[in-house]
Amino acid sequence: MPSISNRGENAHTSPIRKLSPFADAAKKAGKKVYHLNIGQPDILTPPAALQKVKDTDIRILAYSPSSGHTQYREKLPQYYQKYGISVTPDDLLITNGASEGVYFTMLACLDRGQTVLATEPLYANYVGFAEMADVEIKPVTTHIENGFALPSIDDFARALTPEVKAILLCNPNNPTGAVYPEKMLRELAELALERDVYLMIDEVYREFCYEETPFFSALNLPGMDQHVVVFDSVSKRYSACGARVGAIVTRNRALLTTINKYAEVRLSPPTYGQILAEALLDTEESYFVQVNAEYKRRRDVLFQRLNNMEGVTCYQPDGAFYVFAKLPIDHCEKFCRWLLEEFTLDNQTIMLAPGNGFYATPGKGLQEVRFAYVLNENDLNAAMDCLESALKVYATR
Amino acid sequence: MPSISNRGENAHTSPIRKLSPFADAAKKAGKKVYHLNIGQPDILTPPAALQKVKDTDIRILAYSPSSGHTQYREKLPQYYQKYGISVTPDDLLITNGASEGVYFTMLACLDRGQTVLATEPLYANYVGFAEMADVEIKPVTTHIENGFALPSIDDFARALTPEVKAILLCNPNNPTGAVYPEKMLRELAELALERDVYLMIDEVYREFCYEETPFFSALNLPGMDQHVVVFDSVSKRYSACGARVGAIVTRNRALLTTINKYAEVRLSPPTYGQILAEALLDTEESYFVQVNAEYKRRRDVLFQRLNNMEGVTCYQPDGAFYVFAKLPIDHCEKFCRWLLEEFTLDNQTIMLAPGNGFYATPGKGLQEVRFAYVLNENDLNAAMDCLESALKVYATR
Repeated sequence: MPSISNRGENAHTSPIRKLSPFADAAKKAGKKVYHLNIGQPDILTPPAALQKVKDTDIRILAYSPSSGHTQYREKLPQYYQKYGISVTPDDLLITNGASEGVYFTMLACLDRGQTVLATEPLYANYVGFAEMADVEIKPVTTHIENGFALPSIDDFARALTPEVKAILLCNPNNPTGAVYPEKMLRELAELALERDVYLMIDEVYREFCYEETPFFSALNLPGMDQHVVVFDSVSKRYSACGARVGAIVTRNRALLTTINKYAEVRLSPPTYGQILAEALLDTEESYFVQVNAEYKRRRDVLFQRLNNMEGVTCYQPDGAFYVFAKLPIDHCEKFCRWLLEEFTLDNQTIMLAPGNGFYATPGKGLQEVRFAYVLNENDLNAAMDCLESALKVYATR
Repeated sequence: MPSISNRGENAHTSPIRKLSPFADAAKKAGKKVYHLNIGQPDILTPPAALQKVKDTDIRILAYSPSSGHTQYREKLPQYYQKYGISVTPDDLLITNGASEGVYFTMLACLDRGQTVLATEPLYANYVGFAEMADVEIKPVTTHIENGFALPSIDDFARALTPEVKAILLCNPNNPTGAVYPEKMLRELAELALERDVYLMIDEVYREFCYEETPFFSALNLPGMDQHVVVFDSVSKRYSACGARVGAIVTRNRALLTTINKYAEVRLSPPTYGQILAEALLDTEESYFVQVNAEYKRRRDVLFQRLNNMEGVTCYQPDGAFYVFAKLPIDHCEKFCRWLLEEFTLDNQTIMLAPGNGFYATPGKGLQEVRFAYVLNENDLNAAMDCLESALKVYATR
């Protein structure tokens, strides 16, 4: 039998999805499982856009251009104007979700063995893409005590050793929900400019900010046109994860030309998804207002409930739809699995994402878990009842 | 300004798409351009399946499982039964077109610096994926004189040096249209088994065989369950290139488990495309019969016309929808560009794919071009009129 590659054997596995078999088993056994482990919202995709896909007459479902449908690229800059961001269709390349954007950008910006600086806890799949691209992730740890705020600019300056070619951030942050203030981003931009490194920012949760501090896009950092690359996606913005449509946004034309080579190799992003994405651009502002209010309510429920549980360390997240909390447990993977396999409260349990999978540094996050508040308030409360009870049972096992 | 990576600077560029700016300029100048350069068929996507997508009520366009919609994976084995292929849903992983399948399989089977043996001329994007996966492609050249038939088994045996971990073939072949006979595939399987290397076969043109020799799938090679990996796609089969839905088919469970790690990192294949793909499984056999007959007529027109042109070397391709021909020209890229920029016949011209881009060996294929017969007979004839005239003008420039 021919062997699996070593890199395949050792490849990063998703901490979010690897508990799935235990969840499946629990459900098969008749248990109700509240999924707070994955960022699949229960929010409706804007119906008018879905209807537009239905109304589109397709005779031949053809490839789109590798960089995306021209019509969609031409209309997309309108969306960014909402944030005062001025971009042209030539600053955009449409990707298979933000995922592909991160991967292609790593390939185009970094050679093998070079390094990306990233804050941790981090979106776990960055590690997977870094492995695929054969680049190193050098983590700068953020801490629960200050709500996972960005490290100081001095910490960044120290971490920016010569092998580092790029800084990668997620703002608003998955998995912590932290939203980075303009002032800090401006300081970071200055540093990136001084050291001449790329500033890669994943802004897929841009629409989900709950406090008065407004979201500040890296695309509005002055003098950074050659350094800033933003990853975007319709997945969370419009609750359209299955569309698989994202975008790379950068004014660095040489970079986008290089990325387009990789885009050409994979031929094109999905056509249906792009038809939907174009229609989604007509979504009224009221949709965002409503959805935002809904998530804010959920955040408040989750934060309040967690905050009231003994031994749980939590903070109020300002954005996205995640809370990263510290629990009074020995090992997050063990606990999350135990929740699915052994725990039950009225035949219900809860599925969480183990925190250690969101750290690039081995051994970190062992008592932490990520909560995605993608369920309605009733379900969230029921899930918190489970957790509260589970923590008590777990402590006295 | 931060630098582009060296790998990005030197990345393979698509020979098929790189002439596009010249084609765009020609069209802007009012010239009619016959596109025989790209495998985008003009054949209708089965309307019943397109209608089924329209009839599907989606409220939340959610992620699918990373390995594809369960319902689709459960139904897909039916299709393979048509070819006497027995596979289960667990032998299938749904991908973003066959493209992603090739790339993920390279990652899971080969470590960096290891080698895939591939016949050339080859599907140009294999080179791109090999670069991304950091594996080497070792070409075994096939020749126009015998219709690009597979090399002898002795040639393969000699080429299978220790660093080779896999053999990669496309059958029916893009870009040559060659269809590989069962006998040869069985010999190759024996060799692969003896040397314990993977046999990766891209069968996306399976439905397009025009001669009496029937298509033989690598999935029907006995004793090869651990060695054979097949790449598939709905793109050509149902003229649904924009669906971006393909599949990896292998009975090697350890391999598929490893590939699934990469699938999880990119989250999921497109949801709409999978709804369509599932509906396409109900396509009646008459569709394939009709489409096949249409392509066969086109092939005959193209072959006849090319065969009658002075100085053109051609052969009758048995499958797919490509002919790879040798023209009386100095350099294919120069000629293809000249066709778009300078040549005109009644304000019309033709776009072809330069042959050298389909060779992994530098300097090969300089007088060759690929024709995709994806246009109707009238247009094909008009395109051949252009070519015939162009060759005369080009010779006397």
